[in-house]
Amino acid sequence: MNDSFHESDHANFRSADSVSSVFANKTTVASCLHRPLTPHTAAVMGENDESEIIEHHDDEEMEKIRTPRNHSHSFLESVTSSENHGYSSTQSSHRLLAYSDALISIIATVMILPVAHTKFQDNEELKQSIRTLLTTKVAVYLMTFLIVTVAWAAHIRLFQVIERIDDTLALLNLACMMLITFLPYTFSLMATFPNDTLGILLFCACVMVIGLIQALIVLYGFGRPFLLNDQIQMSENQAYYKRRILEVIMRVPIMCLFASIFSIIFMPLSYVILAVVIFLPYISQCLKWIRSKAIGGQVEDSPDSVPFYTYHPSEPLSKERVEAFSDGVYAIVATLLILDICEDNVPDPSVVKKEFGDNLIVALQEYGPEYLAYFGSFATVGLLWFVHHSLFLHVIKATRLMGLFNTFSLAFVGGLPLAYQLTHEFPKGSRNELEAVQISCVIIFFAGLFQLAMWVTALFTERETLHPYVRYGGREHAFMLAKLSLYPCVALGTFVFTCILSRFSTSIFHMMEIGVPFAFLILRLLVRVALALIRWLFCPARNDSDSVPVEDEDSRLPINDIVT
Amino acid sequence: MNDSFHESDHANFRSADSVSSVFANKTTVASCLHRPLTPHTAAVMGENDESEIIEHHDDEEMEKIRTPRNHSHSFLESVTSSENHGYSSTQSSHRLLAYSDALISIIATVMILPVAHTKFQDNEELKQSIRTLLTTKVAVYLMTFLIVTVAWAAHIRLFQVIERIDDTLALLNLACMMLITFLPYTFSLMATFPNDTLGILLFCACVMVIGLIQALIVLYGFGRPFLLNDQIQMSENQAYYKRRILEVIMRVPIMCLFASIFSIIFMPLSYVILAVVIFLPYISQCLKWIRSKAIGGQVEDSPDSVPFYTYHPSEPLSKERVEAFSDGVYAIVATLLILDICEDNVPDPSVVKKEFGDNLIVALQEYGPEYLAYFGSFATVGLLWFVHHSLFLHVIKATRLMGLFNTFSLAFVGGLPLAYQLTHEFPKGSRNELEAVQISCVIIFFAGLFQLAMWVTALFTERETLHPYVRYGGREHAFMLAKLSLYPCVALGTFVFTCILSRFSTSIFHMMEIGVPFAFLILRLLVRVALALIRWLFCPARNDSDSVPVEDEDSRLPINDIVT
Repeated sequence: MNDSFHESDHANFRSADSVSSVFANKTTVASCLHRPLTPHTAAVMGENDESEIIEHHDDEEMEKIRTPRNHSHSFLESVTSSENHGYSSTQSSHRLLAYSDALISIIATVMILPVAHTKFQDNEELKQSIRTLLTTKVAVYLMTFLIVTVAWAAHIRLFQVIERIDDTLALLNLACMMLITFLPYTFSLMATFPNDTLGILLFCACVMVIGLIQALIVLYGFGRPFLLNDQIQMSENQAYYKRRILEVIMRVPIMCLFASIFSIIFMPLSYVILAVVIFLPYISQCLKWIRSKAIGGQVEDSPDSVPFYTYHPSEPLSKERVEAFSDGVYAIVATLLILDICEDNVPDPSVVKKEFGDNLIVALQEYGPEYLAYFGSFATVGLLWFVHHSLFLHVIKATRLMGLFNTFSLAFVGGLPLAYQLTHEFPKGSRNELEAVQISCVIIFFAGLFQLAMWVTALFTERETLHPYVRYGGREHAFMLAKLSLYPCVALGTFVFTCILSRFSTSIFHMMEIGVPFAFLILRLLVRVALALIRWLFCPARNDSDSVPVEDEDSRLPINDIVT
Repeated sequence: MNDSFHESDHANFRSADSVSSVFANKTTVASCLHRPLTPHTAAVMGENDESEIIEHHDDEEMEKIRTPRNHSHSFLESVTSSENHGYSSTQSSHRLLAYSDALISIIATVMILPVAHTKFQDNEELKQSIRTLLTTKVAVYLMTFLIVTVAWAAHIRLFQVIERIDDTLALLNLACMMLITFLPYTFSLMATFPNDTLGILLFCACVMVIGLIQALIVLYGFGRPFLLNDQIQMSENQAYYKRRILEVIMRVPIMCLFASIFSIIFMPLSYVILAVVIFLPYISQCLKWIRSKAIGGQVEDSPDSVPFYTYHPSEPLSKERVEAFSDGVYAIVATLLILDICEDNVPDPSVVKKEFGDNLIVALQEYGPEYLAYFGSFATVGLLWFVHHSLFLHVIKATRLMGLFNTFSLAFVGGLPLAYQLTHEFPKGSRNELEAVQISCVIIFFAGLFQLAMWVTALFTERETLHPYVRYGGREHAFMLAKLSLYPCVALGTFVFTCILSRFSTSIFHMMEIGVPFAFLILRLLVRVALALIRWLFCPARNDSDSVPVEDEDSRLPINDIVT
C-alpha cells in the first residue's frame, strides 16, 4: 500500500489552517465555560487523541486525490509549514507534572535512609542511642520533608497558572528539579555543621536559582499567553497577575539573599530568616486574618480574585498532583527495605561454605527478621496507601489545609520502614524491643490520624470538597469512617496492650500485622454488622433527641453548623 | 446553616435508584459505542466528578423539603441503603495502576544498586575488575529488569481486561505487588548460588503465588461482570474469554511448578524451563507465524477476537501505563546518585576538624567528582526523559514491540548513574578513566537508539500508532527525528573523539554534558536551519527522482510499502 505514505501530504496543507482554527475555537469555548477542559483531561483523552484526530479525518479522505510526484514534495512542504507554527509545540503539562511529582516524592523521602542505616549495638539502650544519635538525623529528615513539600506546593501553584507547556518550559522545569533534588544535601550539611556558613550559603544559592528559574517560567508563560490558565488568559488584568505572581515568587529568593548576607555577619539571624521563608505563607495568612478581624471586612481585594497565590487554607491544590505525590512517597517507602535487603542480605558464598557448612537455608535464617520487617512494612504502607486511595476517590477538590495534613501523614509514613526494621532488630524480650514496637505503633497511629484529619477537614467544607457519598449522612460515610479509623484504633490498641503485656509485645505486634489486612477485607461486612446492631438497639426506640448514638458523628455536627 | 447537614437525607433514598440507573445507562451506551469512556478518562474527569455530581444535583434541590427530625433518621437510613448496593464500591482503576507502576519501576531499577556500590581500587585495571566482579551483578540487573517488565506486561494485560476495581481487588493487587517486589531478591540468590535449589524454589514459589492471585482476580472479575472491560462485558462469549485468559495466566505457574520439581532432580533443566517461561510469548508467536506461513491463512481463529492475550507484536499496550512506568524508572534513576551522596558524602565533623583544619570547603572538594557525576547523570537522564516525553506526546497507541524497545532503552538508562560515577572515580588520564567514559557513551548511545527504534517501529504502522504531525511528511517529523537522534549521534561522536584524542577524554565528555542541554534548547532553530539549507540546495532543482536528500527518510520508504 502506497497510501500510508502519501496520506499526510494534503494533511500538511490543511492542518496548518485547522490547527489555528482549533486554537481559536478553544479560546471561544474557554470564554463560555469557566474551565472547559483541564489539561489533564485533555492529556488522558489523548489516549485516542480524539479531538485532534477528528480534525484530521477529513484530511485523510483527501488522500485519494494525489499525484505521484508528491514524494519529494511532501517533505519539503512540511518544512515550510513547520516554520509558521509556534503553536504546534504546545503540549499538555500532565506528564511533566507527573514526572516532577515522582522526583520530588523520592527526594522528600531520601533523608530517611541515613536514619535507617544508623547501626545500633545490641547491648546499648535504644532510648539512649535514639536521643544521642537519631535526633539530628530525624530532625534533618523532617525538615527536608517540610522544605521539599514547600517547594512542591510552590511548583503546584506555578503550574496551576501555566497549564500548557512547550519544550523550553520542559527544559527549564528539569533544571528546577535538579536544584530541588540537591536541597536535601545542603540541608544535611547545615545540620552536620551548624556553625559553618557553607551549608546555609549553598542552600540559599539553590533556593535563589530555583526562584529565578520560576520567575523565568512565569515571564515566558506570560509572554506566550496561550500557555496560561484559561481564566488568566481570558482576564483583562494579565499584567496585574503577572506582577502579583512575580512578587510572590521573588519574595523567597530575596529573603534568601538577605539570609546569605546575614550568614556571614550573624549566623542565627539567617536561620531565623530561613524559618520565616518557610512559614511565610502561614504567617501572612494569620496576619491577614487578624487584620480582617480587627478592621472588619476584607482588607485587600484584588480586581478579580483568582484562587492562585492566595495562601488561603481553602486555596485549591491540584487533586491529581496530591495523588501523584502521595503515590510516589508510598511507593518509595514501601520498597525502601527491599532496596537494603537486595543489596546487603545476599550472603557471600565463601562465608556460607565456611560458617554454615554450605547450607544456604541456615545462612539465610540469620536475615529472617529483616524479611519479616520487609513484608510487615510493605503491608502497612500498602494498606495506608489503600486508605488514602479510598479517601481520595471521594474527594472532589483538595485544599491547602488537606495538603498540609497529607504532608504530615506522609512524613510519618516515611518513618515506618525504619520503625519496622528496629522492631525486628533487637533480642526478644529486651527493653529495646518493647520500645521499638511502641515507636512503630506511635508512627502508625499518627500516619493514620492525619489521614483521618484530612477527611475531617474536608467535611468542614463538604459541599466543595467531598463527593455526596461520603458527606455526613452519605451512603459511604460510615464505611469511610471505619476505613480511616481502623489503623489509628489498631495502633492505639496495640500500644496499650504492649504496655500491659510487655512480655508479649512482639507477638501482639505480629498478630496486628497479620490481622489488619484481613480486617480490611471484611471491613464492609463488619461495618454493616455494627450499623445493624446500632439500628437494632436504637431504631425501635426512635429517640427524637439530638443524641445520635454514633460517637464521632454528632460531635462534628455543631462544628459543621458554625463553619458553613 | 443547617442545610449542609440535611441535604443528603433525601439524596440517600434517591441515589439508590439513580446509581443503578446510571449503571444501566452506562451499559446501553457501551453497547452503542465501541469504547465509550476509558476508566482513565473517567478517573481524571473525576477531578470535578461531573458525571456523578450532575446526577446528585436534583437531589440537592430536594433539601428544601425536609423535617427537623431527620437528624437521627439520616444516618440509619444510610445504613439500610448501603447494604443494597455492591455497585457503590466500584472504582476506577486508574490510581491503583499508577501506584503499581511506581512500585514496579522502582523494583526494576533496584538491582543496579549492588552494581553501583561495587568498590574499585584505583590501581586495579577497570577492564579486569569489570570482567571478574561486575559481570554477575550486571547480568542479575538485566535479568531482573527483564523479569520484572515481563511481570509488568502481564499486569497490564490483566488490568486491560478488568477495567474497574473494588476494595477486594485493590487488596489482592497489593498482595501481588508485594510478591513482585520480592522477585529481585530471589533472583540475586539464584545468581550468587547457582548450584543451590533454594533460590530457584523461592523464585518459583513467588511466581506461582503471583499466578494464583492473578487467576483469583480474573475469577473475581468475571464473577462481577460490571468490573470488566466493556468489550468483554458486552460479548456473548464471556465464558470463552474467561477460559482463555485463565489458560494463559495459569501457563506460567504450571511451568514454574515443573521447574521447581526438576530443580530437585536435575538443575539445568529447571533453568531451561524458566527461560522458556519468560520467552514463551515470543516463542509461541514465532511458532504461530511459522505455522501460518507453512499452512497458509490464520490457523486458530477465536469466535470474536479481542486484542488481549494474543502476544501479537501489535497488541495494544496501555499507553498511559507505559508512560507511568517509564516516568518511574527515569525518576528513580535520576535520583539514584543523590541517594548515595546524601548518605555518604556528608563528612564527619571530627574528621573535618582533624584532617582539614575545620575547613569544610576543602573537605568537600574531596567529593567534587561525585557532585559532578550527580549533575551529569541527572541532566542526561532528564533529557532522555524529555525525548521520551516528546515522542509519547505524538504516540496514539503503544504496541508490544514498542514496549519491548522501551524496556531495552530503560534498562540502559538504569546503568547510566553507574557509568557516570565510574567516569569521575578514576585518576585523570588513566586507562580506566578512558574506558569509563567510553562505557558511558555506549550506554547513552543504546538508550537513545532504542528510543529511536520505538519511533521507527511506530512508523511501520503509523496510521494506528502515531499522530499525523510526526508521521512521514508530518509537520513535526524532521524535528522529532532530530530530537531522537541527537543523543545517539552525540554519544557516537564523543566515543569516536575519545578514541582519537584519548588524552582529553574527560574534557570531551564534560563538554558534551554541558553542550547537550543547550543543543536541545535551540534544536528547533537548528532543524529549521538545516531544513532551509536542504531546501535551498535541492528545491530549486526539483529533482523528480525518488532520491530524496534526507538520508534516513527514503530508506524507510520502501520498507513502509512492504509492511503495510
